[in-house]
Amino acid sequence: MSHAPTAALNHRHRIVREALTAAGVDALVVTALPNVLYLTNFTGSSGIAILDADRIRFLTDFRYLTAIAAMRGTPHECPGLEPVVVEGSYDVTLAAEIEALAPRRVGFEAAHLTVARCNWLEATLRSRSADVRLVPTEHLVERARVRKDDYEIATVREAARRLSAIAREVASEVRRGRTERAVAAAIDWRIREAGFERSAFDTIVASGPHAALPHARPSERTITEGDLVVLDFGGVYDSYCVDLTRTVVVGKADARVHEVYDAVREARNRAIEAVAPGRSRFDIDAAARDLLASRGLGEAFGHGTGHGLGIEVHEDPRITRRRRDIDADDEAVAPGMIFTIEPGAYLPGWGGVRIEDDVLVTDSGVEVLTDATTDLTEV
Amino acid sequence: MSHAPTAALNHRHRIVREALTAAGVDALVVTALPNVLYLTNFTGSSGIAILDADRIRFLTDFRYLTAIAAMRGTPHECPGLEPVVVEGSYDVTLAAEIEALAPRRVGFEAAHLTVARCNWLEATLRSRSADVRLVPTEHLVERARVRKDDYEIATVREAARRLSAIAREVASEVRRGRTERAVAAAIDWRIREAGFERSAFDTIVASGPHAALPHARPSERTITEGDLVVLDFGGVYDSYCVDLTRTVVVGKADARVHEVYDAVREARNRAIEAVAPGRSRFDIDAAARDLLASRGLGEAFGHGTGHGLGIEVHEDPRITRRRRDIDADDEAVAPGMIFTIEPGAYLPGWGGVRIEDDVLVTDSGVEVLTDATTDLTEV
Repeated sequence: MSHAPTAALNHRHRIVREALTAAGVDALVVTALPNVLYLTNFTGSSGIAILDADRIRFLTDFRYLTAIAAMRGTPHECPGLEPVVVEGSYDVTLAAEIEALAPRRVGFEAAHLTVARCNWLEATLRSRSADVRLVPTEHLVERARVRKDDYEIATVREAARRLSAIAREVASEVRRGRTERAVAAAIDWRIREAGFERSAFDTIVASGPHAALPHARPSERTITEGDLVVLDFGGVYDSYCVDLTRTVVVGKADARVHEVYDAVREARNRAIEAVAPGRSRFDIDAAARDLLASRGLGEAFGHGTGHGLGIEVHEDPRITRRRRDIDADDEAVAPGMIFTIEPGAYLPGWGGVRIEDDVLVTDSGVEVLTDATTDLTEV
Repeated sequence: MSHAPTAALNHRHRIVREALTAAGVDALVVTALPNVLYLTNFTGSSGIAILDADRIRFLTDFRYLTAIAAMRGTPHECPGLEPVVVEGSYDVTLAAEIEALAPRRVGFEAAHLTVARCNWLEATLRSRSADVRLVPTEHLVERARVRKDDYEIATVREAARRLSAIAREVASEVRRGRTERAVAAAIDWRIREAGFERSAFDTIVASGPHAALPHARPSERTITEGDLVVLDFGGVYDSYCVDLTRTVVVGKADARVHEVYDAVREARNRAIEAVAPGRSRFDIDAAARDLLASRGLGEAFGHGTGHGLGIEVHEDPRITRRRRDIDADDEAVAPGMIFTIEPGAYLPGWGGVRIEDDVLVTDSGVEVLTDATTDLTEV
């Protein structure tokens, strides 16, 4: 179970219930587990929440009943939660619960429910002549999640503090003759030792030419004099994700390394300076991208500048270029949003540099949550 | 990239193309990443394959182009693969690709595509008057995956050999005064050191009363004299998953521990003895379940006896009770299927025992892939 206080859960329920009203539905079937966790503190791998105006029916199986019962009477109890035990199929139980809501308009999460499950539910409800209409909705819970509440901010701040302590020591794991895989395993060990539940994603250790691949996997390549080594790692702490990257050089940095590294560091600084309430996420991206372009590295930066962090390691807001095919309006960032700033430059055959920190949008500007030097480290 | 030989990929394509024909579709949009990997050897986190009668259009973004190009000319090259670079949105590119197939019936994976993506694709194709019909299909690739080919069997066999070596040493990590979390971190370290890409799931270390929870998470509880400790761990090796559980006792086992442990071990043996080509998966489950019931532990065994292993850690076949609400027919297991056998007994307040091994159905019977003693170990 996660540890959001009951008052925070109450507040979240209120916001999402307002979204239900605005969407014209009487209840919402929440099947996406990060959304279930956000509304209930439930961290198990199987559970469905049905939120309506005054309660949450919560479907789970015998494996989690003890944990659910143990939450009762604690400061983390989920208000209005009514457990429903699933004995056979979740969807059979879900259909019965939806049927019992009739006559109603029942929203479901169209971005998470599969076509097969939706078709089965609709056919089943129809076969029982249930007076219920299933309505696709999108982002009703995600929109609430994008601005973190005080509990979430405190949790991510503590997670970032712990990850920063690792970042300040991580260069010591990079040694000549060691494989990328061994370095990655050592970083994962430190993440666990620091009190994280687990790594937030597969740790990246990309050395030499591999550093030119933004999503390289740790390999059996051994670290060699002259390598740039990109170290990208994250942890999950009390269900919340943090994410950080540093790039170190093995031996003495030459002029080109200094040039590229300084450009990426300056791009990181410019992007962070661009963060403030009301600023467009596309402008924050442009701050990093324009700096790199001005140093002749525009083509070398192929990915977005950042992504939101929270219960998921990639969530909104996306700090990217506006994509003409999808992104319609400009979107401003707002207090409580937490995201990464992670510009990079990747030069095939030569190597690459990425520097990543996590920031919080505050009422007045920005707070950098991670704290480890961005000076170029030679090991 | 994964390493299935080109001949194996060719064989997989042929089987899935036969399934397309049987389903009455001209092409299949494959969005589930495990299915994409199975058909192409691609192990990245973003890619869509469109399989038709004579080629595979493969949509991916700049991050993976180098890896795709590097596969060409190797013994692991994917036959008929035509890379398509996604520059903005995957779904915009996908819609254009589907439109180019017209006039056709194009299947999609209804068990994986979300309602939101499907609705968007249908609306987009309609707005362009594309002469294409989107057809929901289910399990076309999964049905091929359930019987492993020689390459897959060799890979899982090697993975099981490596995991067994860890299992034979794992009791040494269980020490009085150590926390569950520390033991879990040590096991994860061993998994990496053994050459696995990563743990296949969050390692379970459940001690004392926690052992009564089949899916307990490692906690700060310290291991204490008299505890039963359930150790459930797995690894991913060249993209394939293996999974193993042992339960040890801290100190001298009392009569009740012997009684429960022996019952679970005997249930494991009975289930393995029940594995043979043509046997029903429900009968294999019953072999374990009936033994436990005969020892008064029927109620203590709340989960299924096993699950398939492969590119995913939980896949078909499910070795479970027949659920009257869902499972229609009896389903026989067949040569090439790989699954776990993992009966357990969980007694709230007292503790629990689970023993898990991985088995392969052979032409003549069963091969137990994992190899570590099931004798009760006292530490």
